[in-house]
Amino acid sequence: MKQKLFFTLVGASFALAAYAHYGTDLDLFKFITASLAVVFLAAWLGKATESVAHYAGDRIGGFLNATFGNAAELIIAFFLVKSGYFDMVKASITGSIIGNMLLVLGLSVFLGGLIYKEQKFNSLLAGHNASLMILAVIALFVPAVFMQQLPVAKINTLSIVIAVILIVAYVLWLIFSMVTHKDFLSDIEPHDGEPSWSKGVSIIMLLVATFFVALVSEWLVHSVEVVTKAFGWSEIFVGAFVIAIIGNAAEHSAAILLAMKNRIGAAVEIAIGSSLQIALFVAPTLVLISWFLGQPMNIVFSPFELAAIGASAFIAISISRDGATNWFEGVLLLAVYIILGTAFFFV
Amino acid sequence: MKQKLFFTLVGASFALAAYAHYGTDLDLFKFITASLAVVFLAAWLGKATESVAHYAGDRIGGFLNATFGNAAELIIAFFLVKSGYFDMVKASITGSIIGNMLLVLGLSVFLGGLIYKEQKFNSLLAGHNASLMILAVIALFVPAVFMQQLPVAKINTLSIVIAVILIVAYVLWLIFSMVTHKDFLSDIEPHDGEPSWSKGVSIIMLLVATFFVALVSEWLVHSVEVVTKAFGWSEIFVGAFVIAIIGNAAEHSAAILLAMKNRIGAAVEIAIGSSLQIALFVAPTLVLISWFLGQPMNIVFSPFELAAIGASAFIAISISRDGATNWFEGVLLLAVYIILGTAFFFV
Amino acid sequence: MKQKLFFTLVGASFALAAYAHYGTDLDLFKFITASLAVVFLAAWLGKATESVAHYAGDRIGGFLNATFGNAAELIIAFFLVKSGYFDMVKASITGSIIGNMLLVLGLSVFLGGLIYKEQKFNSLLAGHNASLMILAVIALFVPAVFMQQLPVAKINTLSIVIAVILIVAYVLWLIFSMVTHKDFLSDIEPHDGEPSWSKGVSIIMLLVATFFVALVSEWLVHSVEVVTKAFGWSEIFVGAFVIAIIGNAAEHSAAILLAMKNRIGAAVEIAIGSSLQIALFVAPTLVLISWFLGQPMNIVFSPFELAAIGASAFIAISISRDGATNWFEGVLLLAVYIILGTAFFFV
Repeated sequence: MKQKLFFTLVGASFALAAYAHYGTDLDLFKFITASLAVVFLAAWLGKATESVAHYAGDRIGGFLNATFGNAAELIIAFFLVKSGYFDMVKASITGSIIGNMLLVLGLSVFLGGLIYKEQKFNSLLAGHNASLMILAVIALFVPAVFMQQLPVAKINTLSIVIAVILIVAYVLWLIFSMVTHKDFLSDIEPHDGEPSWSKGVSIIMLLVATFFVALVSEWLVHSVEVVTKAFGWSEIFVGAFVIAIIGNAAEHSAAILLAMKNRIGAAVEIAIGSSLQIALFVAPTLVLISWFLGQPMNIVFSPFELAAIGASAFIAISISRDGATNWFEGVLLLAVYIILGTAFFFV
Repeated sequence: MKQKLFFTLVGASFALAAYAHYGTDLDLFKFITASLAVVFLAAWLGKATESVAHYAGDRIGGFLNATFGNAAELIIAFFLVKSGYFDMVKASITGSIIGNMLLVLGLSVFLGGLIYKEQKFNSLLAGHNASLMILAVIALFVPAVFMQQLPVAKINTLSIVIAVILIVAYVLWLIFSMVTHKDFLSDIEPHDGEPSWSKGVSIIMLLVATFFVALVSEWLVHSVEVVTKAFGWSEIFVGAFVIAIIGNAAEHSAAILLAMKNRIGAAVEIAIGSSLQIALFVAPTLVLISWFLGQPMNIVFSPFELAAIGASAFIAISISRDGATNWFEGVLLLAVYIILGTAFFFV
Repeated sequence: MKQKLFFTLVGASFALAAYAHYGTDLDLFKFITASLAVVFLAAWLGKATESVAHYAGDRIGGFLNATFGNAAELIIAFFLVKSGYFDMVKASITGSIIGNMLLVLGLSVFLGGLIYKEQKFNSLLAGHNASLMILAVIALFVPAVFMQQLPVAKINTLSIVIAVILIVAYVLWLIFSMVTHKDFLSDIEPHDGEPSWSKGVSIIMLLVATFFVALVSEWLVHSVEVVTKAFGWSEIFVGAFVIAIIGNAAEHSAAILLAMKNRIGAAVEIAIGSSLQIALFVAPTLVLISWFLGQPMNIVFSPFELAAIGASAFIAISISRDGATNWFEGVLLLAVYIILGTAFFFV
């Protein structure tokens, strides 16, 4: 019964968004319906991912969540790079990183913490995540620091070298966490709850939901530019906050659902893992793609974006390092998110 | 007998300062007697606070210490804001934060460490303090980073938003540490020693001592400006170091006394708790007060002040994180304090 | 038999370098032979140090390694300061710090991690090393931040004050770790393996090898300037990477040998200890020497150098804090080293 209602809502929101996109010229209507559809489709994706995660174990499940949450973002960013919207790409990368580390993690920790007094997870994994995040922060800061003294050609070469190093590090991280030290990092908490579907159906659900999320995300991007002008918001604010919040609704719902079921380890893995994947895989991949497309995008972020990424990394590392969370730590993450959001809104 | 001598000294130093303030025109004499009186009154306040703390438990005792140590500062800063001395207010906020985190904590850890080889305290609390301090550092850095591109009006609005977020976070922190997770953060070490007075007398002592500290602090501020010119010191140096050292003498004596009695947990709570209270409560409250007074003070600190606060937070977090201290860690804190003091002295 | 071969190689490489230095005018030949000789002599030094370390215990052994690895650097830097090559001195200080924290530590952790799944060491020591490194980073950042507003004379005075504070802190650290808290920080892992020589022979070997390393290092410096021009490399890149890699070959070989014998604690002590010794002892000593020589060198590093030192300290602290290492953490350290190396190469 519950599932029927859910799929009715998913289908209805998609149909409405499709009608708005193909049948009308009302940009605000397009934007709202597409946003709504993305949120419902993302909830479906979250359910499917959770179901697959049940069969695959928490960690690979968390990795799947991160992957399928970022697939849509990679597709959108690809088209933006192709059109030369480099600033908006960087803003959306920034927004995704801080959105995952502050908003998704913050809400998960806060809401989970309202139910459970203390939630524990594998602190060894948290330590490795922290070190990876520091690598990402260093990799993004170095070109900005050295930029003032280097000509454009050298900045582009430096960007490509850094991009390759980050991708190699990311691949080695996958080998480390999935092959050589798989047992080492596995979560201690027992799996609970029943999956919604069988293994096979879950995987098909996952793929179909991903396709629809990507499709509607593109509609969203088309409508967002006009809405941006209507509200007088800057492209950086929209890229970094509006797009990122809607685009990460999948991680959002999945992570919060898990946190409220006392599986904070999987929720942390989704939020931090997604941030890491964007910083270590999506961002450098886009740099390399831009190079193949013949209009190279460098890896130099603005001081505001670097300040936001650095601040997010620091507070997220400080809170996750001890392998335990409570509601107040969620408040701290959300406070930093609101401060950064306000500052970006004013720029 | 011992108490009689103590109160004779307190009374004599107060009488001397009162005579100098009302009866003479000698600014240097006023300054020295007021400083001396503040130090003795602060020692009285420390004794009263320790006595109240005995009845209230270490953590609330530590919180009381921080509150009554910062009450005088809040009053002084209020008059400075009213007179438009924004730079001196910010310098004294900076000085109080780094004075507590480096000088008070450093002396407590160092002197306590000379007596006890290793002193332990609740490392969970240290972790939360670290995360709160990172929030404060981020909140102070963000407006400075974004300032260059924003007009004055937006900086003021951003300052008010950040001030409100910090105060909300501070109130939630009190709820967390006093209500929902009270047991969770309590110190493990047993209380030792006898209180000086009964519960009722202790509380009256606390209130009376606070009143006198506030009174004499005001005399001190009146005399300090003339002395500043006489010695050729900058207002920033005086605000950040001279005023802060004398003004924090209460935390000073209380924290060091506790550390030397092997209650380093309470000493850390005084030093770090006081820094946090200034950053998360006193500073934003002053921003809001300045707004009500019709001459808005923003929350933008100078690069020197931010560097000093950031450096202090890093070293204090690194040292307190493991929940154990020794004399050498005190040396490190004091070394950073001397480096910053020298740098501020030269500006 | 094995020893005979080794000493034949050491002797042959030295003879070749001596011939090149005194008997030819071929700068590239001089450079390559001197580099080769330094590497072999450093291997000898490493063997001798390891042998002495066997008799002295891991920690003092690690300290000896650091000392004898940095003796040559101090001598070279002394002549550079005397000639007024301040930028090259600072570049080589930077290169030694990041080379030890990233390249030496990275290779030790990576290669040790390929053999052993997890390697553990005293995490208390790691915590103290982290706090010391933060002191060093703060001490180097403060003059750079305050520099813009201060005249040259005050920067020089500030440099001397900071230099004295760092040396005092370093001496107190030696007292702490060797006298008052010796037992406290000692490594848990048992000593294994047999020393190559008797105690007396080991010490003589150590001294003789140090002498030869210093001698050939000087030849190397003489040839390096010409080679720098031939390849078109900047003096900063050569100072920070080429010289530092060859100059730290001793720590290199010793640390990696120890890590591969599962004595990662001693390897970490060599790498981090050597960085600390350069930052807290070699750098400030050079500032004081320059003052006595009548041409004062300040302690202000360039933004690139500070960024590199800060980044190295952060990632090294993050990785070493938990007292355990694995191959992937070595990858992270090496990734940061390559990123910084590439950036410096382009400047």
